[in-house]
Amino acid sequence: MNTASSAGWLREITRPTLIVQEQRVRRNIERMAEKARRSGVRFRPHFKTHQSAQVGEWFRDYGVEAITVSSVSMAGFFADQGWKDITVAFPVNLREMEFINALAGRVRLNLLVESPEVVEALARRLQHPVGVWIKVDVGAQRTGIPWQEGEALQSVAAAVRNSRRLKLMGLLTHAGHTYQARSPEAIRRIHREAVRRIRQAQSGLKAAGFTDLEISIGDTPACSVVEDFSEVEEIRPGNFVYYDLMQVQIGACTEGDIAAAVACPVVAKHLQRGEAVLYGGAVHLSKEVLIGEDGSRCFGVPAWPEDNGWSRAIEGARIRSLSQEHGVVQLPTVHLHRLGIGDILMVLPVHSCLTANLLKSVRVI
Amino acid sequence: MNTASSAGWLREITRPTLIVQEQRVRRNIERMAEKARRSGVRFRPHFKTHQSAQVGEWFRDYGVEAITVSSVSMAGFFADQGWKDITVAFPVNLREMEFINALAGRVRLNLLVESPEVVEALARRLQHPVGVWIKVDVGAQRTGIPWQEGEALQSVAAAVRNSRRLKLMGLLTHAGHTYQARSPEAIRRIHREAVRRIRQAQSGLKAAGFTDLEISIGDTPACSVVEDFSEVEEIRPGNFVYYDLMQVQIGACTEGDIAAAVACPVVAKHLQRGEAVLYGGAVHLSKEVLIGEDGSRCFGVPAWPEDNGWSRAIEGARIRSLSQEHGVVQLPTVHLHRLGIGDILMVLPVHSCLTANLLKSVRVI
Repeated sequence: MNTASSAGWLREITRPTLIVQEQRVRRNIERMAEKARRSGVRFRPHFKTHQSAQVGEWFRDYGVEAITVSSVSMAGFFADQGWKDITVAFPVNLREMEFINALAGRVRLNLLVESPEVVEALARRLQHPVGVWIKVDVGAQRTGIPWQEGEALQSVAAAVRNSRRLKLMGLLTHAGHTYQARSPEAIRRIHREAVRRIRQAQSGLKAAGFTDLEISIGDTPACSVVEDFSEVEEIRPGNFVYYDLMQVQIGACTEGDIAAAVACPVVAKHLQRGEAVLYGGAVHLSKEVLIGEDGSRCFGVPAWPEDNGWSRAIEGARIRSLSQEHGVVQLPTVHLHRLGIGDILMVLPVHSCLTANLLKSVRVI
Repeated sequence: MNTASSAGWLREITRPTLIVQEQRVRRNIERMAEKARRSGVRFRPHFKTHQSAQVGEWFRDYGVEAITVSSVSMAGFFADQGWKDITVAFPVNLREMEFINALAGRVRLNLLVESPEVVEALARRLQHPVGVWIKVDVGAQRTGIPWQEGEALQSVAAAVRNSRRLKLMGLLTHAGHTYQARSPEAIRRIHREAVRRIRQAQSGLKAAGFTDLEISIGDTPACSVVEDFSEVEEIRPGNFVYYDLMQVQIGACTEGDIAAAVACPVVAKHLQRGEAVLYGGAVHLSKEVLIGEDGSRCFGVPAWPEDNGWSRAIEGARIRSLSQEHGVVQLPTVHLHRLGIGDILMVLPVHSCLTANLLKSVRVI
């Protein structure tokens, strides 16, 4: 086992464990906070990626006081950690009204709406004031009112105005189609189009008497490669805190920005196949996959553990298949010979949000 | 909301929740237990699918006393529930020796090995007797010694014999390549080949003086469609307890055998796109996907909730994309019109093991 002369954290690994490099995380946070400051926009990071009380605390050192989450229960968790200004960036789930009311009674809560029907239900059932953002679809086709549907936008805005509990904050979007990009230039092109579209929606509402609406945008690819956000009031990136292989593929970061990896014990070697088997499967890494140009599938890329984290990705190596607890990793022979059963390989995740969600706790180094 | 006249369990759903139909689970267990009895083989079900103390108890009603799990921590969980005979069907992870020793001290424990190196480490560090199965690869190319490598098999068997703490049980395989099948006949063909191969390995070892080795096989597809197991001593299927869409696609079960579904609140409707958005994403369903013949991706299929469970799958409907918390479901217009925000759709999972692992607790009806 590669433990005799290695760092304490490495010796203590018994099962698949999410390892976080604090220095890289802080660099990622600082860079984004600084960029927001330069553009004069509010930085409201999305905490769904790390879901960690400890990592959340680090953001306070960079002036962050307002956060984004993706569920009411996650809002409750971070409210318990002392966060007082929370946006739940997910369409209101009317079945959670009881929890929403409890939250709205103890933090400054912002919700997302996209239909008059939900606004009316909120107006009827809310017991405390909340801020409301209208979710706008600028092309991602997930949720939101399409940006060009002026009448639908106005009817929701009017419904919000009619309720004394609801305060209309503005228009919020997630240009999730930047995840289809494969270069910084492609990301910027989608971002420019997204901003043009949401500003068009904003102008239409302004002409209809809804003035002072802010704009909030959110995707990590755009927030990573765009420098100037002065056309919006708020950015909500989340994944940038750890980044991952998908963001490298998109062109949003470099491998050196990846701040989280999964330490996986080696449990078998298959020299003839050029493969090793890791304790590290779909229940640790998630089944998020990158498809290569040749159709090959990659569920993660291994690196060697180092005292302060991990090496560069091992060239020519990848996890080719995952079952519930097993990961099968292809390794060039020279590396396979170096590897012992009981050693640790560090796996750079394809999608750090899903990996962090599965592993729950983190080991910070 | 579809709650006014509906069953209590349905009214109480606030978030994505795994719903289990006890009647179907018991039918699935009974059928498998009965089949094992007819073949005169030991039925040692794999508990990795449900990971539930409650569902585990139901197995006792069908005579089950010995179980399979996929990790040392899962073995610990079920040992706490009173299970006394447990096989960890995963190559020994030497970094968990402390936990393995603790377990071996309180239950009858069986481990999997595939290299002399691991056998020697076990022999040196074990404090209590354990049973040992040699993992054989009959074509799945995940773990195990390839069936035709007689020398490698003998050297592991000899290493086991040399240790007084280790008792050599036999040869164990998981013919996971039945998951590539798309019909019962294709499953049977792979199964026949798998049995022929592992018996060939058994014969070779017998000729070398290792007599009385049992054979243990495990995959749900073969255990579901094959009737006669008299050539082996033990079967270890797991997924059959709930089944899922993947097993339907493989040809291992019918939709009516699926015993678990995820109740998901509807949070948005997009009539023009013919889609609804569910609170139910990758952190609830997993990103396991079925690829259609036309290349379309399916992350789950919705059904209507009913008092005792759910309807047949809605024809022409599927979840076409998942993000962390969102599921985007395509629905024929007639069904979309019937659906209200705040309603529940029941999602049949692609891979019930991963879904159950994500949702942890189950609601039994």
